[in-house]
Amino acid sequence: MTAVILDQLEAVLPDGAVVTDPDITAGYRQDWAADPGAGTPVAVVRATCTEDVQAVMRWASQHRVPVVPRGTGTGLTGGSSAVDGGIVLSTERMRAVSVDPIARVAVAQPGLLNAEVKKAAAEHGLWYPPDPSSVDICSIGGNAATNAGGLCCVKYGVTTDYILGMQVVLADGSAVRLGGPLLKDVAGLSLTKLFVGSEGTLGIITELTLRLIPPQPSASTVVASFRSVESAADAILMITSQIRPAMLEFMDQASINAVEDTVRMGLDRNARALLLAQSDSPGAAGTREIETIVGACETHGATEVFDTDNAEEGEAFTAARRSVLPATMALGSVLLEDVGVPMRQLPSLITGIEAISEDCNILIATVAHAGDGNAHPLIVFDSTDPDATERAHVAFNRVMELVIALDGTITGEHGIGRLKRDWLPRQLGADVMELNRRIKAALDPLGILNPGAVLA
Amino acid sequence: MTAVILDQLEAVLPDGAVVTDPDITAGYRQDWAADPGAGTPVAVVRATCTEDVQAVMRWASQHRVPVVPRGTGTGLTGGSSAVDGGIVLSTERMRAVSVDPIARVAVAQPGLLNAEVKKAAAEHGLWYPPDPSSVDICSIGGNAATNAGGLCCVKYGVTTDYILGMQVVLADGSAVRLGGPLLKDVAGLSLTKLFVGSEGTLGIITELTLRLIPPQPSASTVVASFRSVESAADAILMITSQIRPAMLEFMDQASINAVEDTVRMGLDRNARALLLAQSDSPGAAGTREIETIVGACETHGATEVFDTDNAEEGEAFTAARRSVLPATMALGSVLLEDVGVPMRQLPSLITGIEAISEDCNILIATVAHAGDGNAHPLIVFDSTDPDATERAHVAFNRVMELVIALDGTITGEHGIGRLKRDWLPRQLGADVMELNRRIKAALDPLGILNPGAVLA
Repeated sequence: MTAVILDQLEAVLPDGAVVTDPDITAGYRQDWAADPGAGTPVAVVRATCTEDVQAVMRWASQHRVPVVPRGTGTGLTGGSSAVDGGIVLSTERMRAVSVDPIARVAVAQPGLLNAEVKKAAAEHGLWYPPDPSSVDICSIGGNAATNAGGLCCVKYGVTTDYILGMQVVLADGSAVRLGGPLLKDVAGLSLTKLFVGSEGTLGIITELTLRLIPPQPSASTVVASFRSVESAADAILMITSQIRPAMLEFMDQASINAVEDTVRMGLDRNARALLLAQSDSPGAAGTREIETIVGACETHGATEVFDTDNAEEGEAFTAARRSVLPATMALGSVLLEDVGVPMRQLPSLITGIEAISEDCNILIATVAHAGDGNAHPLIVFDSTDPDATERAHVAFNRVMELVIALDGTITGEHGIGRLKRDWLPRQLGADVMELNRRIKAALDPLGILNPGAVLA
Repeated sequence: MTAVILDQLEAVLPDGAVVTDPDITAGYRQDWAADPGAGTPVAVVRATCTEDVQAVMRWASQHRVPVVPRGTGTGLTGGSSAVDGGIVLSTERMRAVSVDPIARVAVAQPGLLNAEVKKAAAEHGLWYPPDPSSVDICSIGGNAATNAGGLCCVKYGVTTDYILGMQVVLADGSAVRLGGPLLKDVAGLSLTKLFVGSEGTLGIITELTLRLIPPQPSASTVVASFRSVESAADAILMITSQIRPAMLEFMDQASINAVEDTVRMGLDRNARALLLAQSDSPGAAGTREIETIVGACETHGATEVFDTDNAEEGEAFTAARRSVLPATMALGSVLLEDVGVPMRQLPSLITGIEAISEDCNILIATVAHAGDGNAHPLIVFDSTDPDATERAHVAFNRVMELVIALDGTITGEHGIGRLKRDWLPRQLGADVMELNRRIKAALDPLGILNPGAVLA
């Protein structure tokens, strides 16, 4: 790209919005996936408003420049890996939010953190449920782009269930409004839902209208330890076939120990598996749910079952669960999986991952949003050891082979990004890939929006 | 179309699947909307399986024949109006269902009734929530095609929230599987959600994978009468800004009287508005919700407030509410609206409809899923009186003008079909219409799937 072309971009954006200092742009090359294939952008644009994003896309269309949208860069699959010669469009400065308590909606710009949306809602006595573990550092725009999940989804659903409308800038720089603060609306095709989870390949979301609900009731918490992962998985199915818990998380022994190494919760380091469950149903109904959870754990041989209705104590365990990823990262390099299976296959998934860990002689710490059948095997290895690195990648691929064999998904909530792109056809098949490509071509005919993400 | 071409269709379908007897095909020309512009099909195909649907679409692609998909024909906007020279593809014979209580999903063919899905789920102690008023006669495939709503949606969401996957036959006759029994899955674009609500314009759904949840707890019911629609609307906003009721329905005086004329519930015929609300939160939480509802009604001057925790009594009131459409149809011809507004605009909508009724000197009976901001003004007129017919259509259009001015939607849950097609650009604008057309062209390049529905 010539300097003249980049000058044209600077001319249509506010002062300082276009950053070309390599010391700064280097920080925008990768997201948390640390994609080794990430490229070097010609510039980073820190957009301040929808019009800035439009200006970038008009310019990019004219000059056929790839544009990679980016929130706070906490993506885990390289969905925001920079592209050589392209622009990284950061929404980090678009952080406005307003809440309408009568309409029960929040209108938020994409750079706001998920936790900040929750806080704005809470100030009006309302709740925005989706809670990825990265809730304190991830952007709401990134949540929408990946259709992010979290811990409360087992009862409260995922990001798409809370997006009523959006403003989105298309590849040609036009901005359209889809949906709005309407709780029901079936006028025309479900375009809002199509853009959710599209990982920046169809458009760049510049504003979200989010459904809020009354605050979550106080939850009671159960923590149970097991001698085997199978018995924990059986307890999970016994719970979910009877009730809809507000949280139902699984941690294996490696996860338990990674957490204990850092936050010291007093978890049983010898347990092979731990379940963390919550009920937030009020009164006697909640008591019955807790009894159901405790009963299922005891039926399946839990060695210890602890329950508490102390909210702080429950939050401490939840924080421990959320700390598994950073705690595991302290042990070495991590290849992070995000696989899902039909609930019935959960025991096969969990025991299958154990077998892969043994076969490949590599540490896999597995945590799971077990009530959704969504597991995160964390493959831990020494990246300075070529042999271990090779075994880690073999294990990563074998986990994906496993979930495809179990009719599962290679990504439950993190997205395809670039790291899983080559696996997508294995899951979807050639026919559904072709449908994806037709939609992509219809909305981004020049292929300039996040090229290389999701689709090859 | 030559007889030879139709013979080719018969040759690839089971005996009796292709119906050309005009006495029978006449019954497939219109849905409940009784679209006067409905055409005359060359044949009706009663498909028995996905392969039948594929055979129809391959043949239709080859000969460029329009195909109108149809469930049980209870659509209210002409989404299943036949097209001259086209095929009506009925799914009424595709009625299989199976339930997996561990995965908590039902797999249903599209011709099954909504009530039959609920019944199959209930046999396993599970619940399929969406409940359009036509629950006993509408098909689950039609529910998916229109993203149907209902009474419980205010707390439990609409059809799209319960569709995890589908098999869909595309315009070219290929059949693809999207999603599946996975509670979380973000692999590739959200195509499942795109087909939901597409009214048969993108493909023909031949199988649905539906999320089931634990059964609804027993509900308590509040019925409150008001001297004005404004005070009822104010009470609604006071309720929804505090709690999430399990049902929150509004009936105006004309609706109350239409019901009393038929089912005789003992409703106050002099009331200008009636609210019907339910809480299904268990124990003390439910008691508090009922107190909140009762308190809001009393604060806003309800003349009578009745509450009961007797489930049968509550169901009787719900049945009365569901009977408003058939009861109103007994009074004359009905133009049925299905409009939605942001909650804050609900009072303006309800008073605005009253004003239109007076201005046009025409009876409008309004019921509303008030907690969702979704109202059904039923415009009642004598279709043998040209002047009344003219005034009814003026009123119909003025209601749509009103919701567009209130930033609302011309359809909350019934769909655009053919009757509201010309209004869609007014709501969406040229830019979003263009997006709709691009997606349509990408998936149905020959324009043979339900032509004339949704998009011109």
